[in-house]
Amino acid sequence: MKQSMTLIPTLREVPADAEIKSHQLLLRAGYIRQNASGVYSYLPLARKVLQKVEQIIREEMDQSGSVELLMPALQQSELWQESGRWYTYGPELMRMRDRHDREFALGATHEEVITSLIRDEVKSYKRLPLSLYQIQTKFRDEKRPRFGLLRGREFIMKDAYSFHSSHESLDQTYQRVFQAYSNIFSRCGLDYRAVIADSGAMGGKDTHEFMVLSDVGEDTIAYSDTSSYAANIEMAPVVMEYEKKAEEAKEIEKVRTENKKSIEEVANFLEVDAKDCIKSMLFKVDDRYVLTLVRGDHEVNDIKLKNLLGAATAELADAEETKSVLGCAVGSLGPVQAKDVEIVADHAVAAIVNGVCGANEENYHYMNVNPERDFEVSQFADLRFILEGDPSPDGEGKILFAKGIEVGHVFKLGTRYSEAMGATYLDENGRTQPMIMGCYGIGVSRTMASVVEQFNDDKGLVWPTALAPFDLHLIAVNMKDASQAELAEELYAKLKAARFDVLFDDRQERPGVKFADSDLIGMPIRITVGKKASEGIVELKVRKTGDMHEVHVDELQTKIEEIMKSL
Amino acid sequence: MKQSMTLIPTLREVPADAEIKSHQLLLRAGYIRQNASGVYSYLPLARKVLQKVEQIIREEMDQSGSVELLMPALQQSELWQESGRWYTYGPELMRMRDRHDREFALGATHEEVITSLIRDEVKSYKRLPLSLYQIQTKFRDEKRPRFGLLRGREFIMKDAYSFHSSHESLDQTYQRVFQAYSNIFSRCGLDYRAVIADSGAMGGKDTHEFMVLSDVGEDTIAYSDTSSYAANIEMAPVVMEYEKKAEEAKEIEKVRTENKKSIEEVANFLEVDAKDCIKSMLFKVDDRYVLTLVRGDHEVNDIKLKNLLGAATAELADAEETKSVLGCAVGSLGPVQAKDVEIVADHAVAAIVNGVCGANEENYHYMNVNPERDFEVSQFADLRFILEGDPSPDGEGKILFAKGIEVGHVFKLGTRYSEAMGATYLDENGRTQPMIMGCYGIGVSRTMASVVEQFNDDKGLVWPTALAPFDLHLIAVNMKDASQAELAEELYAKLKAARFDVLFDDRQERPGVKFADSDLIGMPIRITVGKKASEGIVELKVRKTGDMHEVHVDELQTKIEEIMKSL
Repeated sequence: MKQSMTLIPTLREVPADAEIKSHQLLLRAGYIRQNASGVYSYLPLARKVLQKVEQIIREEMDQSGSVELLMPALQQSELWQESGRWYTYGPELMRMRDRHDREFALGATHEEVITSLIRDEVKSYKRLPLSLYQIQTKFRDEKRPRFGLLRGREFIMKDAYSFHSSHESLDQTYQRVFQAYSNIFSRCGLDYRAVIADSGAMGGKDTHEFMVLSDVGEDTIAYSDTSSYAANIEMAPVVMEYEKKAEEAKEIEKVRTENKKSIEEVANFLEVDAKDCIKSMLFKVDDRYVLTLVRGDHEVNDIKLKNLLGAATAELADAEETKSVLGCAVGSLGPVQAKDVEIVADHAVAAIVNGVCGANEENYHYMNVNPERDFEVSQFADLRFILEGDPSPDGEGKILFAKGIEVGHVFKLGTRYSEAMGATYLDENGRTQPMIMGCYGIGVSRTMASVVEQFNDDKGLVWPTALAPFDLHLIAVNMKDASQAELAEELYAKLKAARFDVLFDDRQERPGVKFADSDLIGMPIRITVGKKASEGIVELKVRKTGDMHEVHVDELQTKIEEIMKSL
Repeated sequence: MKQSMTLIPTLREVPADAEIKSHQLLLRAGYIRQNASGVYSYLPLARKVLQKVEQIIREEMDQSGSVELLMPALQQSELWQESGRWYTYGPELMRMRDRHDREFALGATHEEVITSLIRDEVKSYKRLPLSLYQIQTKFRDEKRPRFGLLRGREFIMKDAYSFHSSHESLDQTYQRVFQAYSNIFSRCGLDYRAVIADSGAMGGKDTHEFMVLSDVGEDTIAYSDTSSYAANIEMAPVVMEYEKKAEEAKEIEKVRTENKKSIEEVANFLEVDAKDCIKSMLFKVDDRYVLTLVRGDHEVNDIKLKNLLGAATAELADAEETKSVLGCAVGSLGPVQAKDVEIVADHAVAAIVNGVCGANEENYHYMNVNPERDFEVSQFADLRFILEGDPSPDGEGKILFAKGIEVGHVFKLGTRYSEAMGATYLDENGRTQPMIMGCYGIGVSRTMASVVEQFNDDKGLVWPTALAPFDLHLIAVNMKDASQAELAEELYAKLKAARFDVLFDDRQERPGVKFADSDLIGMPIRITVGKKASEGIVELKVRKTGDMHEVHVDELQTKIEEIMKSL
């Protein structure tokens, strides 16, 4: 591709409203332009990268036994009413009316469409399992679109759905897609983790998020420093024994703690360790109130609480609720004499001896509190967030934290949609059964942005070879110099014939502009035709390492192949 | 691909609401399913065909010097207000509001988006010309979606836009894209014509439609029986000399023609030839009235009338307008003593001697009317529709008519959008100039349906090799027969390794069902593994010709390649 014929509108300045690297660089290097908040055009370089990502996805999904189809963006509201999501999805679901005033959703996801399709076409266990995917534009009306392609309102996704007559079959497909996703993100060159995630209200058991490690990620991953264990911090179990202090239980004592509310304030004032304090928090779990205790230096994990109690929701009670249940304000709560409220506690609380807790009375705490002697606990369980340094739940190594960008998600849906929408099949015995489903997503445009987050330097983008829009960036320093222009044209033809994808900067621009643009747009290898053109010598620059090589054109192809292999 | 793993839901019955072959067959053969009126899912076989069409388009567009990008479906209303089309496009433009109540159009076309993009990024003649294309989903809220994929509300298009600093440059790109389109439709195996079309209100000069010849087409093409000349019937000029009858002019005579209104009734009643009658029709051309005359056996072409008078619109006047301008009803109109109205006439009228026309008085006509003696004509011009048998305008052969499906359109837009939206560049002399634009569209999903219209028989689809979802359809007659199943599996692996795209019917179905499905879905070659499996003999069937060949597996590949070449 001759650069004079394409559109790569590079910018010298960092765009003011772009907060993160991928957003800044994709704009600056002329890969994307914003059309509206959260809505972008993919310019020619980005289109090529997306196609490469899509091709990798297609190959791996096909390999996993999934079959491609293409469903529409316009989705009749009736389908979403059947699943119930028309009412629960909220304003993120873009909705519109056609000329006949019929309501449509713009596809944010396709569970409803595919479930209705399979419900109509598949009736027998003989036609199952079935795994189908599409690569398609999705619409979600994010409240605050941001971070460029990471959180947009119109974006490209690969979504897949599988249908089964048994959980074993779902497990198999889940594993295959899991492997496909691992292959996809590895081939994209990404540093990622498959993390155990929360299955939410879906009732499924297994679900994993594929997270690209990045400081701009909005999720926190807890991972082992030695094994492959990784989980969303919400999900990581704490697996450890707490040792009880070797100390005699003392008599409980009520002390005045004027205006001391936080654990830190109370511990400092009473000159005890936060570890010896009991943090007490009142949660509304579905319809009842549960006082939840963790050690003073720990935090309650509401998802663990919710799962422990088999509830749909677990939310911190507000001031008014707290007052009415425990008779005092947040900051003085405690389990001692907390009547009429269920108490659950993290395992660490059981190991506290002569601890401190709120007295359910403003400005008062208890000292020398001992669990089970001074209050009853209905259940001890794992209820806290894991911390850096905790042992990894798989028994190998210690936990570290990282931020992650979710680029993929595999999910066992179970019968959530098939039951709501009547997607049933006849089993071997002629009995009607709801299909068991899985769903699997990859953010295609988000994957591209994640690669940019991981592959850049102060000069611009540094594409991994698998995704670079072009293999080679050929530059003639001075197109007005006949021998340079001639050699460049000759090399352009020759390299194209050798099946390299070449971007040829044939523009009449100053060398400085060409070099800066070249670094900015980030092809793996730059070939510069300059003053030594008449001797048949050109310069190779490896974008990633900055290494320079002077090469005679006769050895050019060999040298390029050698460098490519090393990248 | 094993058939048991994919979704090909064939139907035995012709769907009741599908009127045309492509709609019926794509439904019956399990290629598409309707999600809503004019909205379809492309099932796995259709997805593969679409990808093949898209790949051909990409190769030819790239070859033409156009560069791919991808623009969004969500388009801010402000852009469409700039071009003015927010108000003129009508209900076919789907519109919606986001959560912040901002108005968007769902892209029906992308002139506004690309013009705004190029306006912002390209400022100098040095960066022109530029030609960009995308393959993308489009939305148009058709009043009556019908004919399956031929007239849908959500469909796939390739649209391209070019930007130039001179008309010569536009001409060059126009020619290149024209050639690309010719290549694309030829490679798809289509019988098509590039026809001269009306440039409408766009003010452009050249515009061609690419029409696939088909009886279900909604357009009529006038084409030469000997040359490549073809035009939309609206546009074909009539190039012929009319000979004046060798007859003396007689005296004009007013005759009573009680209740005779049509040319046929009047001609029969007065015992004259329709060729000797003058058909007079009153048109409202922009703001004025023009009485338009053609010979009795001809029809007025309103587009020619409009273009002759340089008007924006030319519509038949209604009864009330006619009454007020000429004082009588339609059916008795004529040019004699038609005062205060401009009269234009087709060349054929000039050759009429002693003709018949209405008398502008109910139930009366004039006989022996002679143009220029009995009425004045402001202009004689080509004003009628061409007819079958007329000489071809290029001087070669005679005109025939055919129906066509518009699958492509190339169009010189000129400065319609660049002027409205301020897309200017600085020329060599530093002067601000509006960019000159072209636009070029191909209906991708419509192209697929058009191929089906041209390639089918009473058993089903008959794909041309370039677009067939699979090259080969491998069938084991009885999967329970070990030698058949084994040989089929072996051939499946072998043929895939030889780079054939193979669909392998491994289903436990009756042979009759398998054969019927195979004919219906229409792969070019069927390979049947049946009773002679143990001898290593299989049967090849060529879908197009029905030819059968018994082949030993050792010669299978050679035979397949031989047949492929012949298709």
